[in-house]
Amino acid sequence: MRIYLSGEIHTDWRAQIIAACGDLNLSFDGPVTDHAASDDCGAEILGAEANKFWHDRKGAQLNAIRTRTGIEQADVVVVRFGEKYKQWNAAFDAGQAYAMGKSLIIMHQDEHQHPLKEIDAAALAVVKSPLQVSQILKYTLDGSLPK
Amino acid sequence: MRIYLSGEIHTDWRAQIIAACGDLNLSFDGPVTDHAASDDCGAEILGAEANKFWHDRKGAQLNAIRTRTGIEQADVVVVRFGEKYKQWNAAFDAGQAYAMGKSLIIMHQDEHQHPLKEIDAAALAVVKSPLQVSQILKYTLDGSLPK
Amino acid sequence: MRIYLSGEIHTDWRAQIIAACGDLNLSFDGPVTDHAASDDCGAEILGAEANKFWHDRKGAQLNAIRTRTGIEQADVVVVRFGEKYKQWNAAFDAGQAYAMGKSLIIMHQDEHQHPLKEIDAAALAVVKSPLQVSQILKYTLDGSLPK
Amino acid sequence: MRIYLSGEIHTDWRAQIIAACGDLNLSFDGPVTDHAASDDCGAEILGAEANKFWHDRKGAQLNAIRTRTGIEQADVVVVRFGEKYKQWNAAFDAGQAYAMGKSLIIMHQDEHQHPLKEIDAAALAVVKSPLQVSQILKYTLDGSLPK
Amino acid sequence: MRIYLSGEIHTDWRAQIIAACGDLNLSFDGPVTDHAASDDCGAEILGAEANKFWHDRKGAQLNAIRTRTGIEQADVVVVRFGEKYKQWNAAFDAGQAYAMGKSLIIMHQDEHQHPLKEIDAAALAVVKSPLQVSQILKYTLDGSLPK
Amino acid sequence: MRIYLSGEIHTDWRAQIIAACGDLNLSFDGPVTDHAASDDCGAEILGAEANKFWHDRKGAQLNAIRTRTGIEQADVVVVRFGEKYKQWNAAFDAGQAYAMGKSLIIMHQDEHQHPLKEIDAAALAVVKSPLQVSQILKYTLDGSLPK
Amino acid sequence: MRIYLSGEIHTDWRAQIIAACGDLNLSFDGPVTDHAASDDCGAEILGAEANKFWHDRKGAQLNAIRTRTGIEQADVVVVRFGEKYKQWNAAFDAGQAYAMGKSLIIMHQDEHQHPLKEIDAAALAVVKSPLQVSQILKYTLDGSLPK
Amino acid sequence: MRIYLSGEIHTDWRAQIIAACGDLNLSFDGPVTDHAASDDCGAEILGAEANKFWHDRKGAQLNAIRTRTGIEQADVVVVRFGEKYKQWNAAFDAGQAYAMGKSLIIMHQDEHQHPLKEIDAAALAVVKSPLQVSQILKYTLDGSLPK
Repeated sequence: MRIYLSGEIHTDWRAQIIAACGDLNLSFDGPVTDHAASDDCGAEILGAEANKFWHDRKGAQLNAIRTRTGIEQADVVVVRFGEKYKQWNAAFDAGQAYAMGKSLIIMHQDEHQHPLKEIDAAALAVVKSPLQVSQILKYTLDGSLPK
Repeated sequence: MRIYLSGEIHTDWRAQIIAACGDLNLSFDGPVTDHAASDDCGAEILGAEANKFWHDRKGAQLNAIRTRTGIEQADVVVVRFGEKYKQWNAAFDAGQAYAMGKSLIIMHQDEHQHPLKEIDAAALAVVKSPLQVSQILKYTLDGSLPK
Repeated sequence: MRIYLSGEIHTDWRAQIIAACGDLNLSFDGPVTDHAASDDCGAEILGAEANKFWHDRKGAQLNAIRTRTGIEQADVVVVRFGEKYKQWNAAFDAGQAYAMGKSLIIMHQDEHQHPLKEIDAAALAVVKSPLQVSQILKYTLDGSLPK
Repeated sequence: MRIYLSGEIHTDWRAQIIAACGDLNLSFDGPVTDHAASDDCGAEILGAEANKFWHDRKGAQLNAIRTRTGIEQADVVVVRFGEKYKQWNAAFDAGQAYAMGKSLIIMHQDEHQHPLKEIDAAALAVVKSPLQVSQILKYTLDGSLPK
Repeated sequence: MRIYLSGEIHTDWRAQIIAACGDLNLSFDGPVTDHAASDDCGAEILGAEANKFWHDRKGAQLNAIRTRTGIEQADVVVVRFGEKYKQWNAAFDAGQAYAMGKSLIIMHQDEHQHPLKEIDAAALAVVKSPLQVSQILKYTLDGSLPK
Repeated sequence: MRIYLSGEIHTDWRAQIIAACGDLNLSFDGPVTDHAASDDCGAEILGAEANKFWHDRKGAQLNAIRTRTGIEQADVVVVRFGEKYKQWNAAFDAGQAYAMGKSLIIMHQDEHQHPLKEIDAAALAVVKSPLQVSQILKYTLDGSLPK
Repeated sequence: MRIYLSGEIHTDWRAQIIAACGDLNLSFDGPVTDHAASDDCGAEILGAEANKFWHDRKGAQLNAIRTRTGIEQADVVVVRFGEKYKQWNAAFDAGQAYAMGKSLIIMHQDEHQHPLKEIDAAALAVVKSPLQVSQILKYTLDGSLPK
Repeated sequence: MRIYLSGEIHTDWRAQIIAACGDLNLSFDGPVTDHAASDDCGAEILGAEANKFWHDRKGAQLNAIRTRTGIEQADVVVVRFGEKYKQWNAAFDAGQAYAMGKSLIIMHQDEHQHPLKEIDAAALAVVKSPLQVSQILKYTLDGSLPK
């Protein structure tokens, strides 16, 4: 089963999930998590832009090659909303994944419950921790529950 | 041509676009814009919930009947990001619309340019005002540009 | 908006919904509700069968021309589970509608809550009465809630 | 070829089919067959719910991650209807599988022939025993018939 | 409901169906039934070809504009196999219609039962007469059976 | 039937086809044919760009709202290659139309036969004149050939 | 690349193609070619039928599990029309393959050119011999032509 | 990740990209680049044609077996426009790839910027050199930027 880990890129939640899943038969994918590289990749490879709007356009489109392919190939898409930033790209990924019929798992803390209600309502699970994601994936694969 | 107007529901931008389009051959659709009705519709019709999470789930799913149908039937989806709130549902709508192959127009002010770069990059136009949306729709229909 | 009313055919719930919706801009469709005609249509038109299995096959396939077209053309599919009978065809319709991405509304009483949990979990609303269906449709069309 | 074995979870019919298929080049998938785990997985991982409706919702949606992926990846979906319970989820799976264009095999005894007529009519084979399923799969793979 | 009438073009079966359906809310479509025009349309409009293979290619591709559009827009595709000719184009139309998920009705006499078994097996009804087709369409629309 | 007329915008071939089709039941669509408006629409509505690349990007994306919608809604897409210019956008439209399963008619003179061979090979008709297009459309609608 | 070899089952043309392709990186699939098994598989596994129509129905539907899966998974579908029999199932397979967007290669002798013109017109190649099929597949894989 | 390299076949740009990507986990595909073989394959395998139009038709359709399969299986489609020739087939490939939702990278020099504006506007990256393509693919796979 293929899992795409979208959203917040400033904590190690992806590593926690992957570690907790151990040797389950899963493959994980996700966006580039180096914030600077992600912001500047377009200008670095395709040439600098004076205008920030086009600088960002070039970068966002390069990143889309990876994120779009990753979401399309996934069976399950996990989207984590962190404490900071607008994170509209996380919500945008969730929208794409939902329209493609992927199984959605959304991770966030209680403070964001109300503004995330439409996205939660499209999900098959709403969780708070990486551990819960690993428990869901383990249950999905072998039917075993946490002890 | 069918237009779906998604996003911010606290100003009259929808009415401005519709008025500016005059008698062009267009039909407009969008979400319920009565904030209280939109929040409470689920509990009102399906029964109250003690837990805010399920209160919101019921409402969000009822609203999804309208928004999902509206986006699916649209040729062009306009998404406006306002100055306030998290607006993750707007980004979620944009993600769905993009994955369905709809023509996207995104409206926002400069301050949100960077966090919206992934969504802007998926759009066919990024605008600041309702007037620009109406000019795009007029040009699309009859090829005439503003004087 | 097009509504398909699937499931139980022994009470007048369809008529109640249609009446309660008054002159809303909706079109309603559903299966043939004459139980005898529905059972025997295949044999009547295509010729009698000694074997009940083939008698029923002929009828079920003729009915599928109507039900499949109706579900495919619908925006919203309402499925009512009544008090009697196996009603596997209702659950089968719900499965088809869900896989086609239709908005599902499921109607049943509390006694069937547990065995219907998978179908309820795929629905955008779970209701008990025809009145609630009409309230949902009204809210979806014009944003107004029951007083 | 990938086979999804849906439906009744209280007898060993899945094991019988798998054993009878021996070393044919087939992979088998199916739902979690531990009834208690299947009922309680949502509450165990995502947190308890006072209301049975939401307890079941959480569980049904977690299970959907597995069942939906399994059905989507299958070439052939076998659905067994047993002697007991409502088994609406089995019929729901059959509906999804049919709408996705999967080859359907339905297994049931004669007593359920009439109420299953719509689902049988969508199937490529209607059988009574696990042995017949294995014979079909063997014939499909290598063209050999039982002696 | 839209009906596409494919297959045999030498008898008046299409007219019989249309007449028998009277003022039911149906629209009918089908191929060009003027055999000479159908054979020569390509050469007439696009220029003559010395080689029969290319003469026929031009004609067959022009006819495909009509037949493909007609089948795609239909809800029900009726295919009649007559007594004469190879009629491979009728079987080809049936294959296309089936793969597009259309409801298929196949019309033929008993002598062709065995060689048409694969096509009959994909149909929702197998009939012998235009009258039966009209009875099916009437039943599908209003639930009434022939007296 | 809906016809999209793509390609060369400097002669009156669209008007010739439409006139020759008279009152046939057809609707015609196509790109904006005012070359200056088509080139500058983006900058005019969305704001000027110093860099020609982004000036053209803005215009091309605005035009895509119209062309993409037009091609998607068409049953038949006619693409004319003229004598001048690179016309890569015409070939791009043809590629999109073919991948969407539209019936393609390609119009060009003999001098372009070899470089257009891949596109011709995807077409249902290759013609030289607007008159031939109108004859094809007339034949497709009513089966009559030119006298 | 996956190749499905449909049609005539009384000569060794499949073996000729496979042998001529040697160790090219291809996988081949096709229907059960044991005529008796193919006719009787349904009755053998699912139980005898007094009526030839239902005997054939059972067999045709069992065979469809293999043929439908095979065509869906193929990149190229080769359909051979032999000298004898109606072969409507071959034309039906071709129609399905074409509607699914598969690359079609049709094999037949000159005598059948006219009645196969619609199917030939949907093919990417029309050939007379297994050798030509192997030459096409070799050219497609490595670009080399026969010497 | 699978990459399809479409367009210009007279320089070694494909080899440059493949070499620069080293041992990244990528597979590359593309058209037959032997110009003579590509032009004459149809006539060589299927038989000579007196008319250049049909000679080219046979060849173009044989080549389509490879190019269509290659584009369909790709995640990323790179299209290079060279300095010479009409290259309408390159633009046609780009149109197909775009309509199938593939990630497009377009390569060309500044002189072609204006006539390629519609195709550039559909791309996720516009580059000038094979090196840039390899940098994009490397960044997409492992997130590292050129030093």
